[in-house]
Amino acid sequence: MELEILSKIKVVLIHTTHPGNIGAAARAMKTMGLTQLRLVTPRYFPHDEATARAAGAIDILDSTQVYATFAEAIADCGLVLGVSARLRTIAWPQWDARGAGRHIIAAAQNAQVALVFGSERVGLSNEEIDRCHGLVQIPANSEYASLNLAAAVQVLTYELRVAALAAVGVEATARPEHVPADAQDVERFYEHLRQTLVDVEFLDPENPRQLMRRVRRLFNRALPDTMELNILRGILAAVDAKNAKAR
Amino acid sequence: MELEILSKIKVVLIHTTHPGNIGAAARAMKTMGLTQLRLVTPRYFPHDEATARAAGAIDILDSTQVYATFAEAIADCGLVLGVSARLRTIAWPQWDARGAGRHIIAAAQNAQVALVFGSERVGLSNEEIDRCHGLVQIPANSEYASLNLAAAVQVLTYELRVAALAAVGVEATARPEHVPADAQDVERFYEHLRQTLVDVEFLDPENPRQLMRRVRRLFNRALPDTMELNILRGILAAVDAKNAKAR
Repeated sequence: MELEILSKIKVVLIHTTHPGNIGAAARAMKTMGLTQLRLVTPRYFPHDEATARAAGAIDILDSTQVYATFAEAIADCGLVLGVSARLRTIAWPQWDARGAGRHIIAAAQNAQVALVFGSERVGLSNEEIDRCHGLVQIPANSEYASLNLAAAVQVLTYELRVAALAAVGVEATARPEHVPADAQDVERFYEHLRQTLVDVEFLDPENPRQLMRRVRRLFNRALPDTMELNILRGILAAVDAKNAKAR
Repeated sequence: MELEILSKIKVVLIHTTHPGNIGAAARAMKTMGLTQLRLVTPRYFPHDEATARAAGAIDILDSTQVYATFAEAIADCGLVLGVSARLRTIAWPQWDARGAGRHIIAAAQNAQVALVFGSERVGLSNEEIDRCHGLVQIPANSEYASLNLAAAVQVLTYELRVAALAAVGVEATARPEHVPADAQDVERFYEHLRQTLVDVEFLDPENPRQLMRRVRRLFNRALPDTMELNILRGILAAVDAKNAKAR
């Protein structure tokens, strides 16, 4: 069964070390009906080992896009979820694999969605997590939670397929439409906010502590739409104008 | 979390061709808390490639038992389910992956259970299926349903873990605690925000339109906690202080 909605979900692999894992991830995706693979600075790609492990999913590798930065890879996505094995000290919004499947399929009705996997060794960095709206955890053995990269892709794309199948045939409810803004527009807001916070001397660039991370977490939970972003940037512009006059 | 019941479930691999798949299957099992691996006439075992792909799951390979016949491998099991990608012409009792997880966990209260995977190329033979009580299917893309052996083990052991967690009443993921601030504190923030927006001439009190309503909707979606409210009010206070100096 073709599930159109799965094409709105981008699997993003960051700094993948072993090319075989890229091929195996492509194969896992295709078995579940996903097609969109994006790579951020892979160590080797294309590579014979990726091709070998992809088996019948070569078409996915052929259309895979490679990006120089994570920001570019998710620029057109309205929801960005990172896959994380560890619990983080800062409480980020979290879903288990099943909940993430449902959440992503619901969001994909209105936006492109990125599901992001860090490198095999270290996973996602804090800076990468800052660009995510939330984290996804696969429930695993706490004494050995080390799923292979492609295995994690397999479990999560499986949950996406199951959620997409469940969503099919269900009448669209009268949910008020909420279309999250693109990641690049949200990023511009954060940059503007940071600058204004420096100007009003709330943020000390020499000692920023966790401030921007905490602010991101707050706004990422809300997933602002474009109109809301415009309001927020309008507020910042008004504050900036007052400051300029005062000088 | 230790889930005792998972030790009653045996993963049985028949005629496995690639030793790497045996190692990867062991790793997949261990991430989900399963420990019992049984092999029926594997082409190569033990083997360096199995060891390499097992990563931190060597202990499972070390305790793996090898059998000369399928019948011996399942002799002590009260429920035997075969994993099958294809639909069979003879209607066998069938479960999807999720239903199989629940069924197996329920059965494992009272019996040893075998979950059986055929060889990479041909899957289970009709004679092998004859020894199964039913078949398990992973919902997959009908145009490319070819999950790698270890990937199939990963998805099914994942469903077993989720079902086992549900059976003991544990949420699959410990959600980090997020305690929304009291409504009255949020209300004070909105009042402060409104006043600051008037001061920076973004909000015209004579013609407020829908501005505060839209702002409320945005922040209410995020449900700020107390620390976040303090940050937001700190920002407003910094803006106010700049304004006061400018006057």
